Amino acid sequence: MRVIGIDPGLRNLGWGVIEMEGSRLRHLANGTLHSAGTDLAKRLLELHQGLTAVIVQHAPEAAAVEQTFVNKDAVATLKLGQARGIALLVPAQAGLEVGEYAPNAVKKTVVGVGHADKVQVQHMVRHQLPGVTFDSADSADALAIAICHAFHLQSAARLGAAQLSRTALSHTQKRRRA
Amino acid sequence: MRVIGIDPGLRNLGWGVIEMEGSRLRHLANGTLHSAGTDLAKRLLELHQGLTAVIVQHAPEAAAVEQTFVNKDAVATLKLGQARGIALLVPAQAGLEVGEYAPNAVKKTVVGVGHADKVQVQHMVRHQLPGVTFDSADSADALAIAICHAFHLQSAARLGAAQLSRTALSHTQKRRRA
Repeated sequence: MRVIGIDPGLRNLGWGVIEMEGSRLRHLANGTLHSAGTDLAKRLLELHQGLTAVIVQHAPEAAAVEQTFVNKDAVATLKLGQARGIALLVPAQAGLEVGEYAPNAVKKTVVGVGHADKVQVQHMVRHQLPGVTFDSADSADALAIAICHAFHLQSAARLGAAQLSRTALSHTQKRRRA
Repeated sequence: MRVIGIDPGLRNLGWGVIEMEGSRLRHLANGTLHSAGTDLAKRLLELHQGLTAVIVQHAPEAAAVEQTFVNKDAVATLKLGQARGIALLVPAQAGLEVGEYAPNAVKKTVVGVGHADKVQVQHMVRHQLPGVTFDSADSADALAIAICHAFHLQSAARLGAAQLSRTALSHTQKRRRA
């Protein structure tokens, strides 16, 4: 399964695509979309076009976006929110369900602790995706989000399989008792 | 010229379309788009589809979106920002330039004072657009934004015309002096 992670931002929007084969992960691509200038609508349009092109090119089957806000700065939070709206919209337009993870959840999943710093996160991303090089700190974060989502999808699938086999077992036992 | 005003919100997104003929304004349509549920990406997709349909149906030539944030509540500001991202994106996708006005600027233009309340704003919208009925308080706000933008476009056009005629006059005077 192919997973895209997105670290939204109005100036720099990081993205990273990985492939999950069984329990193994493989890096496919990462990059950073930029927008600048005073025309906000045009900047959002540029991000929308860029991210749409990424999704068309790499055809992910699952997507996740970082869930964050800038504390105590409403203007910065609003800007981030606008870019985040685009980051959520584009995969939804491609028919994908979009997972959302708080930064601490990503760090906890990828590094093992919720308060890990950027260096630790990048170290673990390199460990999980051998040979990867990052386009930017934002695309490294995006790959971490993709890894986090891949692990969660994997756990959910295993849980589902376990529940199915427990149900099957319970049916078998019921039949034996009957 | 046909102008759409948009009052963005994740739960309720108000829109209103007016026609400006010379200095006269006419109401064309207004409405409110709703989104609900816990799947944020799907909600943004619904707003995007709804607003795209409105723009396809009413074919505005200019657009304006309210510029606001929720003070001291980062979560609410982020939610608003995400909806606002869609509100800015859709007209930009239709090739329109998108004006942005702070709530006080809208009130100052439509009512004459920046601290006007909702009742005063709705009274002036009814005055400017005889016979109008509002779909919701949000669509009334959206019509106020459209009126504000129409007035600004009108002023800008007059200013441009005045500058042109001053330039023409100055050329004529220079020719006479020469």
